[in-house]
Amino acid sequence: MSKQSIFLVGATGETGTTILNALLEDGSFEITCLIRTSSAGKPSVQALKDRGLKVVTGDLTGPIEDIVALLEGIDIVIAALFPGSLNDQIPLLKAAAQVGVERFLPCNWGTPAARGGILTLTDTKGEVHDYMMRLKVPYTIVDVGYWYGMSVPRVPSGKFDYAIFVPANNIIAGGTAKNMLMDQTDVGRFTVKAIKDSRTLNKRVYAYGDLLSQNEINEIIERKTGENLELNFLSAEDVSKEKEEAIKGMEAHPREISKMYSVVNWQYADTKYVRADNTPENAEYLGYINGRDLYPDFKWIRFEEFIDDMIAGKGRKIYPHLQLSI
Amino acid sequence: MSKQSIFLVGATGETGTTILNALLEDGSFEITCLIRTSSAGKPSVQALKDRGLKVVTGDLTGPIEDIVALLEGIDIVIAALFPGSLNDQIPLLKAAAQVGVERFLPCNWGTPAARGGILTLTDTKGEVHDYMMRLKVPYTIVDVGYWYGMSVPRVPSGKFDYAIFVPANNIIAGGTAKNMLMDQTDVGRFTVKAIKDSRTLNKRVYAYGDLLSQNEINEIIERKTGENLELNFLSAEDVSKEKEEAIKGMEAHPREISKMYSVVNWQYADTKYVRADNTPENAEYLGYINGRDLYPDFKWIRFEEFIDDMIAGKGRKIYPHLQLSI
Repeated sequence: MSKQSIFLVGATGETGTTILNALLEDGSFEITCLIRTSSAGKPSVQALKDRGLKVVTGDLTGPIEDIVALLEGIDIVIAALFPGSLNDQIPLLKAAAQVGVERFLPCNWGTPAARGGILTLTDTKGEVHDYMMRLKVPYTIVDVGYWYGMSVPRVPSGKFDYAIFVPANNIIAGGTAKNMLMDQTDVGRFTVKAIKDSRTLNKRVYAYGDLLSQNEINEIIERKTGENLELNFLSAEDVSKEKEEAIKGMEAHPREISKMYSVVNWQYADTKYVRADNTPENAEYLGYINGRDLYPDFKWIRFEEFIDDMIAGKGRKIYPHLQLSI
Repeated sequence: MSKQSIFLVGATGETGTTILNALLEDGSFEITCLIRTSSAGKPSVQALKDRGLKVVTGDLTGPIEDIVALLEGIDIVIAALFPGSLNDQIPLLKAAAQVGVERFLPCNWGTPAARGGILTLTDTKGEVHDYMMRLKVPYTIVDVGYWYGMSVPRVPSGKFDYAIFVPANNIIAGGTAKNMLMDQTDVGRFTVKAIKDSRTLNKRVYAYGDLLSQNEINEIIERKTGENLELNFLSAEDVSKEKEEAIKGMEAHPREISKMYSVVNWQYADTKYVRADNTPENAEYLGYINGRDLYPDFKWIRFEEFIDDMIAGKGRKIYPHLQLSI
């Protein structure tokens, strides 16, 4: 059997990197990485080439024939895009439909939520799904909850600071809402499982490595570090106000990426802790199938293991090149 | 075990009537029919009372507390609304969430299609689903394809005229696209099956009585009547133009119901015959489960039986009180 050919968009990003690693680990794929023409000279792209990967350059906003040409012979397209580029999937889907790919993974890898104002990201993703479904492109929608690496509070000693992108010291609505969380390594490994599985074709599939409340996370960290966390307690009303302020800020400064991130941040606070949407029950209510049931032997990295690595200095900062003040 | 209590909105409409008949046939439900206050005096409402049914009057556009009061003690809400009233489900859902009903059947009972401009009805229904899912109201979405009674062409002798609402003599894009079709009697019976089934909770479910192309329908009718049908052959481009014209007409006369129906009519022509969306494959692609698999012993009324009844004078005109020129 010849190897399945994968077209990976976003191979140097956070989600793309873990998927790429898992694809290589699996070994049964022929991988082509699409890199924006303007990014061709970046060190991260050179690093892909150094790993022996096939790298092609192109622009999803360019002529559709060029995208079609890039997709000739491709079986599976994986779109791991930066949140601001989700609509680049429209021409990619158009080309994928023309070529007749076997499967398309639209950019999801997030938390399950209903459409209509809870998470702007979900609404944009939903419109991409609509477009995909109008074209009847075979798909798998993969959601993974929230990343471990984005769920860690700062500890007073500062020993986690080297690996924290945004500290999770705001405890919301009592900190009791359970949330599906996953290690980034498993995001890639789970995605590869789903790609190789006919049961996930034209399905939404979710999984998680651990299901924890903020209080449970903090208990684990205090127990393992011996430190007392300094926490800010916010009510549901506080989140609602912060969200409104963030939206005003974004409207006033639409080009500032930190303003957009602030909206995303408070919308996540609302959906995860106030609405409690990021749960297995809600995923199944919304029509997802359970990836933990599909892969009972999958050894998910537990949150405690992730924290052990953080303590041992083996953590890694997410979005290392981004500096945000949220 | 006490009977399950059903709150049926739209009991005098086309879909509501078949559901009501099937609920009564089943016998295991306590039924409350909601009638608009302004319709309380209509003969169709008196007919419900004559059948011994509990009828309550109210307005879905009125105060939410009044709707909540109507729903107290209700297990299942069925919203069988006229296309123009789909948004009345918003307050109904809000009240249903407050009361904590077991299951809500939003107004669907149509053909499966992706969202985003194919069928305006589907888009409006999708927004209602979004609202329902934000409130996490337990649901079953039932789709049934297109009605037999709306799929019959006029025969030259005029013998079907007594029972035809809109004649289906336009043969589109070669007449080869298969379509899921159902007898209205089965729409109700299938819905009742779904209501009683825990497997359909928080699911989309579809079924059909027959899967036929226009050419197959016409072959059945010509064979059974001995008449030669007079047909108009339209291309995909013709449908596209008619659809555009209909939209312009609706925009110019937004209050004329016949203009709205013309848009619906041409959008259906496109989705059913040009896009070929009304198929089991597309329903499953969109995430539906197969009702024919769930109920293997269900004796679906076949299209041929329906035509036999039409010939025997036992047909019934759909929307008997509407006069439209489409």
